[in-house]
Amino acid sequence: MMNGDEYRESLRRLKRDVYAFGARIDDVVDHPLTRPHVNAAAMTYDLAHDPRYQDLTTATSHLTGRRINRFTHIHQSPDDLVRKVKMMRLLGRETGSCFQRCVGFDGLNALYNVTYLIDQKYETAYHSRLRSFLAYVQDTDVMVDGAMTDPKGNRALAPSKQADPDLYVRIVERREDGIVVRGAKVHQTGGINSHEVLVMPTTALGEEDSDYAVSFAAPADTPGLTFIFGRQTNDERKLGGEMDQGNPRFGFVGGEAMIVFDDAFVPWERVFMCGEHEFARPLVEMFASFHRQNYGGCKVGVADVLIGAAALIARYNGVADASHIRDKLVEMTHLAETLHNCSLACSSEGQMTPSGSFYVDPLLANTTKLNTTRFTYEIGRLAHDIAGGLIGTLPSEKDLRHPVVGPYMQKYLRGAAEFPTEDRLRVLRLIENLTGVSALVECMHGAGSPQAQRIAIYRQANLAEKMELAKRLAGIADDVGGPASSSTAASAKRDA
Amino acid sequence: MMNGDEYRESLRRLKRDVYAFGARIDDVVDHPLTRPHVNAAAMTYDLAHDPRYQDLTTATSHLTGRRINRFTHIHQSPDDLVRKVKMMRLLGRETGSCFQRCVGFDGLNALYNVTYLIDQKYETAYHSRLRSFLAYVQDTDVMVDGAMTDPKGNRALAPSKQADPDLYVRIVERREDGIVVRGAKVHQTGGINSHEVLVMPTTALGEEDSDYAVSFAAPADTPGLTFIFGRQTNDERKLGGEMDQGNPRFGFVGGEAMIVFDDAFVPWERVFMCGEHEFARPLVEMFASFHRQNYGGCKVGVADVLIGAAALIARYNGVADASHIRDKLVEMTHLAETLHNCSLACSSEGQMTPSGSFYVDPLLANTTKLNTTRFTYEIGRLAHDIAGGLIGTLPSEKDLRHPVVGPYMQKYLRGAAEFPTEDRLRVLRLIENLTGVSALVECMHGAGSPQAQRIAIYRQANLAEKMELAKRLAGIADDVGGPASSSTAASAKRDA
Amino acid sequence: MMNGDEYRESLRRLKRDVYAFGARIDDVVDHPLTRPHVNAAAMTYDLAHDPRYQDLTTATSHLTGRRINRFTHIHQSPDDLVRKVKMMRLLGRETGSCFQRCVGFDGLNALYNVTYLIDQKYETAYHSRLRSFLAYVQDTDVMVDGAMTDPKGNRALAPSKQADPDLYVRIVERREDGIVVRGAKVHQTGGINSHEVLVMPTTALGEEDSDYAVSFAAPADTPGLTFIFGRQTNDERKLGGEMDQGNPRFGFVGGEAMIVFDDAFVPWERVFMCGEHEFARPLVEMFASFHRQNYGGCKVGVADVLIGAAALIARYNGVADASHIRDKLVEMTHLAETLHNCSLACSSEGQMTPSGSFYVDPLLANTTKLNTTRFTYEIGRLAHDIAGGLIGTLPSEKDLRHPVVGPYMQKYLRGAAEFPTEDRLRVLRLIENLTGVSALVECMHGAGSPQAQRIAIYRQANLAEKMELAKRLAGIADDVGGPASSSTAASAKRDA
Amino acid sequence: MMNGDEYRESLRRLKRDVYAFGARIDDVVDHPLTRPHVNAAAMTYDLAHDPRYQDLTTATSHLTGRRINRFTHIHQSPDDLVRKVKMMRLLGRETGSCFQRCVGFDGLNALYNVTYLIDQKYETAYHSRLRSFLAYVQDTDVMVDGAMTDPKGNRALAPSKQADPDLYVRIVERREDGIVVRGAKVHQTGGINSHEVLVMPTTALGEEDSDYAVSFAAPADTPGLTFIFGRQTNDERKLGGEMDQGNPRFGFVGGEAMIVFDDAFVPWERVFMCGEHEFARPLVEMFASFHRQNYGGCKVGVADVLIGAAALIARYNGVADASHIRDKLVEMTHLAETLHNCSLACSSEGQMTPSGSFYVDPLLANTTKLNTTRFTYEIGRLAHDIAGGLIGTLPSEKDLRHPVVGPYMQKYLRGAAEFPTEDRLRVLRLIENLTGVSALVECMHGAGSPQAQRIAIYRQANLAEKMELAKRLAGIADDVGGPASSSTAASAKRDA
Repeated sequence: MMNGDEYRESLRRLKRDVYAFGARIDDVVDHPLTRPHVNAAAMTYDLAHDPRYQDLTTATSHLTGRRINRFTHIHQSPDDLVRKVKMMRLLGRETGSCFQRCVGFDGLNALYNVTYLIDQKYETAYHSRLRSFLAYVQDTDVMVDGAMTDPKGNRALAPSKQADPDLYVRIVERREDGIVVRGAKVHQTGGINSHEVLVMPTTALGEEDSDYAVSFAAPADTPGLTFIFGRQTNDERKLGGEMDQGNPRFGFVGGEAMIVFDDAFVPWERVFMCGEHEFARPLVEMFASFHRQNYGGCKVGVADVLIGAAALIARYNGVADASHIRDKLVEMTHLAETLHNCSLACSSEGQMTPSGSFYVDPLLANTTKLNTTRFTYEIGRLAHDIAGGLIGTLPSEKDLRHPVVGPYMQKYLRGAAEFPTEDRLRVLRLIENLTGVSALVECMHGAGSPQAQRIAIYRQANLAEKMELAKRLAGIADDVGGPASSSTAASAKRDA
Repeated sequence: MMNGDEYRESLRRLKRDVYAFGARIDDVVDHPLTRPHVNAAAMTYDLAHDPRYQDLTTATSHLTGRRINRFTHIHQSPDDLVRKVKMMRLLGRETGSCFQRCVGFDGLNALYNVTYLIDQKYETAYHSRLRSFLAYVQDTDVMVDGAMTDPKGNRALAPSKQADPDLYVRIVERREDGIVVRGAKVHQTGGINSHEVLVMPTTALGEEDSDYAVSFAAPADTPGLTFIFGRQTNDERKLGGEMDQGNPRFGFVGGEAMIVFDDAFVPWERVFMCGEHEFARPLVEMFASFHRQNYGGCKVGVADVLIGAAALIARYNGVADASHIRDKLVEMTHLAETLHNCSLACSSEGQMTPSGSFYVDPLLANTTKLNTTRFTYEIGRLAHDIAGGLIGTLPSEKDLRHPVVGPYMQKYLRGAAEFPTEDRLRVLRLIENLTGVSALVECMHGAGSPQAQRIAIYRQANLAEKMELAKRLAGIADDVGGPASSSTAASAKRDA
Repeated sequence: MMNGDEYRESLRRLKRDVYAFGARIDDVVDHPLTRPHVNAAAMTYDLAHDPRYQDLTTATSHLTGRRINRFTHIHQSPDDLVRKVKMMRLLGRETGSCFQRCVGFDGLNALYNVTYLIDQKYETAYHSRLRSFLAYVQDTDVMVDGAMTDPKGNRALAPSKQADPDLYVRIVERREDGIVVRGAKVHQTGGINSHEVLVMPTTALGEEDSDYAVSFAAPADTPGLTFIFGRQTNDERKLGGEMDQGNPRFGFVGGEAMIVFDDAFVPWERVFMCGEHEFARPLVEMFASFHRQNYGGCKVGVADVLIGAAALIARYNGVADASHIRDKLVEMTHLAETLHNCSLACSSEGQMTPSGSFYVDPLLANTTKLNTTRFTYEIGRLAHDIAGGLIGTLPSEKDLRHPVVGPYMQKYLRGAAEFPTEDRLRVLRLIENLTGVSALVECMHGAGSPQAQRIAIYRQANLAEKMELAKRLAGIADDVGGPASSSTAASAKRDA
Repeated sequence: MMNGDEYRESLRRLKRDVYAFGARIDDVVDHPLTRPHVNAAAMTYDLAHDPRYQDLTTATSHLTGRRINRFTHIHQSPDDLVRKVKMMRLLGRETGSCFQRCVGFDGLNALYNVTYLIDQKYETAYHSRLRSFLAYVQDTDVMVDGAMTDPKGNRALAPSKQADPDLYVRIVERREDGIVVRGAKVHQTGGINSHEVLVMPTTALGEEDSDYAVSFAAPADTPGLTFIFGRQTNDERKLGGEMDQGNPRFGFVGGEAMIVFDDAFVPWERVFMCGEHEFARPLVEMFASFHRQNYGGCKVGVADVLIGAAALIARYNGVADASHIRDKLVEMTHLAETLHNCSLACSSEGQMTPSGSFYVDPLLANTTKLNTTRFTYEIGRLAHDIAGGLIGTLPSEKDLRHPVVGPYMQKYLRGAAEFPTEDRLRVLRLIENLTGVSALVECMHGAGSPQAQRIAIYRQANLAEKMELAKRLAGIADDVGGPASSSTAASAKRDA
């Protein structure tokens, strides 16, 4: 297993075309725009060596029996699923940010299951290829970007019906030695600091969309790949001083990038799905469920930081004991722990799949994520309430360091006298940046938008069975109106 | 283990002073006001004999190794805690009501732990007495009412400061052979159909309140006990026809009663706490946590029935496929499963206690109940939305059976033509009664009011640790303002 | 103008076929099931004679210049609309209930406008007929039931497509002297204690549904009319003592009834629409808007009572000064006043119509009602929170009067010692009944279900204009994609 | 009346010490950090000359009878109050931002009332001084910064009890010709582009705090004043290209600044309160109520832009007709119009004060603002939901213009093919920046934090009267427990 510095070193060796702010970035490890995200990901390596946490951060490979970083593990029990959640909360607490590595982790687990199913049906060799790739990942401890979201163009049209056929990643050529792919993946968390890109389709696909039913792993330095780093809230603050960043070491989100595949070649041994369109949907669903499981882990860890920051500013403001402040801290805690409950329960209720690995309860995993799209915002709103208006009007660190206005800030922005002004300002900056748009949107749309969760919940709500319960208690004999929800699946699909 | 009919028979033999509607009830098994509650409790006996469910509804006694009804079990693992939750959801689904037996179950488990702690400190014999009582309960399978809530008079005053000292149950005499107690317990779920009443104090107590620090078990036919059955929403409908009751077999709530102890005598072997005031608080907290664990079990089972009823009326109304209807059913499901997550997680995260039994995670258990005080209302509101105005204006069953107006109702209150009018009316009545005040209030105040949960959450939020996380990330050196939350415990107490 | 007693007397003279609980009711004034609703309506007569309130409760007829009860008035200014709202809040506060008379009031105003429009198009005489009827109503001060809601059968089918063509009121015969109608109206607030029934269609209608496009006024004693009184929460308590009713004098809801028209004859001078199907929609919309205006009046008055009851029980419990109690009372007040704001604003923003009368702002009126379907539930939930569990478990008044258990209740159910036990129990019963299903459902579905308001808001949201604002600020030139929301109206309709 | 360019010109002539990002700003009109805020304020000047809007944007001075900019007007009727709200919504729609000028407007109106009251009590001359200052403001049309919020240090301590006595603005010297003041005001909206600073105390004051009971107007170029411009979300984007700013012309918030008064001299004719501590509270309350009135005006105008932007991105994404999208747009509209209702109603219910001017209904004004602290966040959350993840991950404008990666962005970030990619990206940037922390916090804490509104609502809830309503209906005779809420005012104060 690598440690954080070895991880950084390995990234320095990896030459790719990464762009940001209209310029090429040579070294993502040291560039101020990307460094915090590398640091956050590095924490997944460092904590695997921390004896306090190794029960969470490492696992035993079912392939080799060796100790591996948990982020490369295939879940072998509900307990593994629970440990994943706890590891993610731990990392959220340590970084206050997104450490990115769950995406590839979830992609590997989803593909482990689905390649098995495809092989069962078609006698293909995807599962053994995937196992080989997995063994490589476990041995080298490389970071894998799970790449699912296509740009999608007009959301009302299927991939092959788009005006531009490249708006979903597709196979443009099938060769003897492999395939050539074109398209792009957006919102790629950890995209610029992963060693491998693990591509999966982003939606259920029909037969006419078979060329879009493609999954593969490509090294990040594969010719034809270009990485365009996304903007974040207040990202330019990374280019100046430290204090205004709020969380200067780890930043706030995953460092999302757009990855372009401009006729990139992938050899067959790295191809895990190639045209089996009917498996796109289960793959998307499994990946989504695994990924939705996470939000009551990592985001609760980040919420712990935000709750702590809110408690701290209340203290610095002298109001820690006001009943309405305490009540808001209770509410923040309540919401955070409710999210955590969801992640824990969808994990402890996990079940074995045909491949022998373990899968979360998908209904419960979807409630996890749907709650996140609400509670995170409410937690942020309460933090704003407690923090006061200064998070919106505080002058810059440069002003604080300025000989004329700095002393005014020191004097007038002091809270309770026993605390230094700068401590107060630092925690305000932390709160400000923990609740910015990038951070919120990651909770809203990461692992799929709320409507995707609603459709999944509808499919799994088992309304027919519940109607029978109601009928029995109300004294209603078997009715004559036919099956209870004949057209619901169609309806759900129509609205997706 | 008794079955339902044996349970009913045992109740018929138990002679007590039960009053309702200003008259004495001779036989709670057959009296229309109490019968549904007996039926619901009887289900806890019947399902213990149903081979489909015995992994949930029975357990192996750690005292005797015998198969016992789970409601008499002391939890021996997190898995036991999880099974408890699933058993409760099952029973909620089967009855659509409160089956009452969890209160004594939780009382036994809480006392099992706290008597152990008292004995550790004082070398008393409470724990072995409790074990003897437990063995009796497991062997005879009697139903135990866990009696905690005192009338409380002026909530701003401690027990001994009340104008009337009897407003909390207290020891009025200590005799050689036992104690004499006076007072009352209110909101006693299953009170009129339990064999035993297991009394516990209702609040933390100071030294001056030592006479209120009393716990004991009394057979329901102990001289000096009087039971006054409480009113419920629409309770008079039980005295007439069947349809308007909605859930005629099982009713809607626990059949709560007020139990008066008018100088009742309790022999020492049934006394489990007698003056050790400092253990009142841990007992209340443990009982409360075990009891709060339940609400994402039983109430989710009931919610399953309500969701089914809502889906059914949508179907009968011809709107099952309207997008806004589906969306509301999704929301109801989402809220119900979120509650279930909370119960599951506080259970699977349970820990062993000094007594060797297992205890839920108290922070998570409190979030379970606090969410219930919100989500149950919202689920009910959505059911009203879907059901339509008829749940508020539907004429009576007597009108439906009337030769003049009955045919009008049959003709005009039909929904989609393929379903009988009466089926539609029955499900409307089910929804109406599932969302009445009694049912809602049970979710609001059962296991303690929301403020009790908030105080518990505050105590367990560990804000000091969270502040440290925030400081580290914001780059704040150790501050100079002293301990982070010196006065928080005092504040929390002040507001209780 | 009649006073309350004259109103009661007039009802005694009015012989109709009213049924409840499977029996005929001879006199709705004195029958315990209906008396409270008569009392509430009578208050609209009494307050018109109370000099403190006459600026609100009376108006000057624009037809005759005479002083009339405001409930018979056609709005002549925004100020009239505002006074209507304030009158309704006053009556809600005085009765704690529904006083029913707004429905006919709103029906008259809606028809006043729409008959004018029909006449403009078809040179019919509906408007002058309506004015004659109005003059009669103003002179005699009779109570008019505005009858809109049809049973609707299968909601997915238009009136003429139902298996039973009578599921919407329709013209079955056009005769020289008038029309014969068949069908029923449900949820008729004040139906059994109104002198006149003013029928309107309940939905937009196409040409094939022309026979359903019918509006008329029928005296309540018209042959062929049958009234079936609906059940309410706890309605049987009206048949026993007084205390358990909570609000014994006025009850809780409008006393809704189903009215059957079994081939009833209506002379032409009482017919206000007869086949002009395209005017069904504006009539429904205008009536609905006028009716939705009310909910931040009457329901806020009722909320004032509930807030007062919650403050009172807090006082009786000794916790009036607990910070969380105060906070909940603030929240209840905040929600109630927000509703009131909505009603006031949709009124003060009212506009003159072609007929010369004044119409509320329909967008704002819809927000009023939509908020009511949420806030009323939340206000009730908070009242439950403050009240404590006793509203769900309190024994009956008969027990309180019983020689054996009465004294126990007196002793043990006392709150803070300075208040009598019975006062405490009375306010608990008031809270219980103010928050029952009937009361809540009236707020949910009265004046149309939430989805009806959402569709109305969508239609009036003017998204095209708002998109232009966004484009201008974002620097987007005129786009090329055609009209902004071409298909939205169709979509809205599809989902209704 | 000035127009926008004249306003800009006047600012160029005004020399002050303004700092931002650690450097002096010479010209706030042209500096990219401040220009958008100047533009937004300039719109209040320009629209006063726009004949379409002059009924809203201008008024007739009650001092001179001349046509004046409404922002300098003293309200002469409820209609004036309503027009203020509509003017603010108009300006919010036109700018999508904060136009800042309401603060001084509200300060003038509050002081107009309170100076009158002080003079009544003490026979001082504050009111006539204020009228003179008002006449000057109306004649010259200068922009006035209403400066209330002090830094406040330890919130648990009164001004004179702070470790540093300057944490609230105070009189440090009373001279023959005027006073010398020291301290600072924070969160000063429009602070760097106003001509005058109108200072008011920020909290109720006791006698020991008399030196803090000071109100005065100072020209912005008064010696001793220093302005430190606050940071905003993404403020550095103003220094680069245009697109990423989202609303490049007007920005997003008020351009808040901290203003330091380092022993500034104010002549007596500009002093409006000097030691009359008991009037600090009514001044704060009046100012706060006037200011809280606004939030259902300006913020609804901004919400209109955000709703339009959300509708637009839905269209660009091809999902404008998805039912869940329409539902979210309805919800956003519903929430925005509810806020508007609140502002309209607190205005139309305004009352004349002793000074002859008009004052909003303070209870209703407080509900306006309290709703804003919730609804604005929810509207933003829904906008994020509709917009999709790209608002969190979109690469920079510089990338879009880059020869290598620009074409990739053009190709892959296109939505529905009929719209240009850049239009889509522009509206995403608009949504991103409309929902940033600065914009949200302005809605949370502008015009006082939520707790301030709750305390105000509690004071005005009239619970005693409401308890009487409840008692009457429940049949409770006059009770014996003394005044209903003896200690509530004290409690409310304690918690402020």
